[in-house]
Amino acid sequence: MYRDTGEGFRNAVNISHKAVEQVAGKGDIVVDATCGRGKDTLFLAQLVGRNGKVYAFDIQESAIESTRLLLAKNGAAEQVVLIKDDHINMAEYLKERPKACMFNLGYLPGGNHCIKTEACTTLEALKIVVDVLAIGGIITVVFYPGHPGGTEELETARNYLSGLPQQAFEVTEIRFINQVNNPPQIIIVRKK
Amino acid sequence: MYRDTGEGFRNAVNISHKAVEQVAGKGDIVVDATCGRGKDTLFLAQLVGRNGKVYAFDIQESAIESTRLLLAKNGAAEQVVLIKDDHINMAEYLKERPKACMFNLGYLPGGNHCIKTEACTTLEALKIVVDVLAIGGIITVVFYPGHPGGTEELETARNYLSGLPQQAFEVTEIRFINQVNNPPQIIIVRKK
Repeated sequence: MYRDTGEGFRNAVNISHKAVEQVAGKGDIVVDATCGRGKDTLFLAQLVGRNGKVYAFDIQESAIESTRLLLAKNGAAEQVVLIKDDHINMAEYLKERPKACMFNLGYLPGGNHCIKTEACTTLEALKIVVDVLAIGGIITVVFYPGHPGGTEELETARNYLSGLPQQAFEVTEIRFINQVNNPPQIIIVRKK
Repeated sequence: MYRDTGEGFRNAVNISHKAVEQVAGKGDIVVDATCGRGKDTLFLAQLVGRNGKVYAFDIQESAIESTRLLLAKNGAAEQVVLIKDDHINMAEYLKERPKACMFNLGYLPGGNHCIKTEACTTLEALKIVVDVLAIGGIITVVFYPGHPGGTEELETARNYLSGLPQQAFEVTEIRFINQVNNPPQIIIVRKK
């Protein structure tokens, strides 16, 4: 079992942040599809600033609350719309095409490990984001193949994303190939 | 067959440049293990500046000449040592531990396709660089699995690099998974 606190996790999160920074900035509309404890939401809120907007989703109240606290503590709550709903419903909330959408899959760190993202709904959410994403925008997805169901989730998503037409999308997979214990993996989708 | 001029090529080269920029800068010692037409050599020469040094290797006179011309045209020749020798001999030339070493494998664009890097010597060269690389330094390798022998070269190198101990090295593989015709692949090694 892969531990979330490991180096692969830090690498994966850093790489996804760097990828988003290349595309989105002050005043942009972005999405955190999986709030968790709010780390990506805070990163996005600081990236887009007061004139931007972050739509941040999680199905768990405890994740929404953790994120709310983290944002408040960092003076970054104003530009974030926190939404306690499944990210497969995100199209109902988004008024604009986002420049970036981040997924950090798996379960809530420190939460109930039975409540986690699932291959089926992750696939559905990805299809929605691929559709609504702004031209030039990116999707970052961090997978945890070491978690129960994580490999299935990765394979399902990978199968879909690797089939996106290369005229319209650039899909990049990043793996840490000398790490033991199923380290996280990243897939980055750029819409041309 | 993958064409060198395609998008995957540009992506692979851009990604390897960005990776090197994060580690090496003005005044550093770096290596281009495969001059080719000199694009990476010029990039490295501009990155390290007049107070740095680039050791640049190629077995073909025509590659060395192309690189010499490109450097001269860009006023970047002074900090480059051009060496017409196999990169497996690089330890004989290097006086310092390099901060970065770039490999762009395959054959010389516009040259004889029979003269190309080979799995066996590429592996040997990688072992040398892994050994001499400075702590904190990186190796970038761009592979062309669409070239004859390219898949074998990738598999041989991948097999070695994925076995490097994770306490001492971070090995990252980057693939463009929605491109047809065996696009280039990148492996990046960071020495901790």
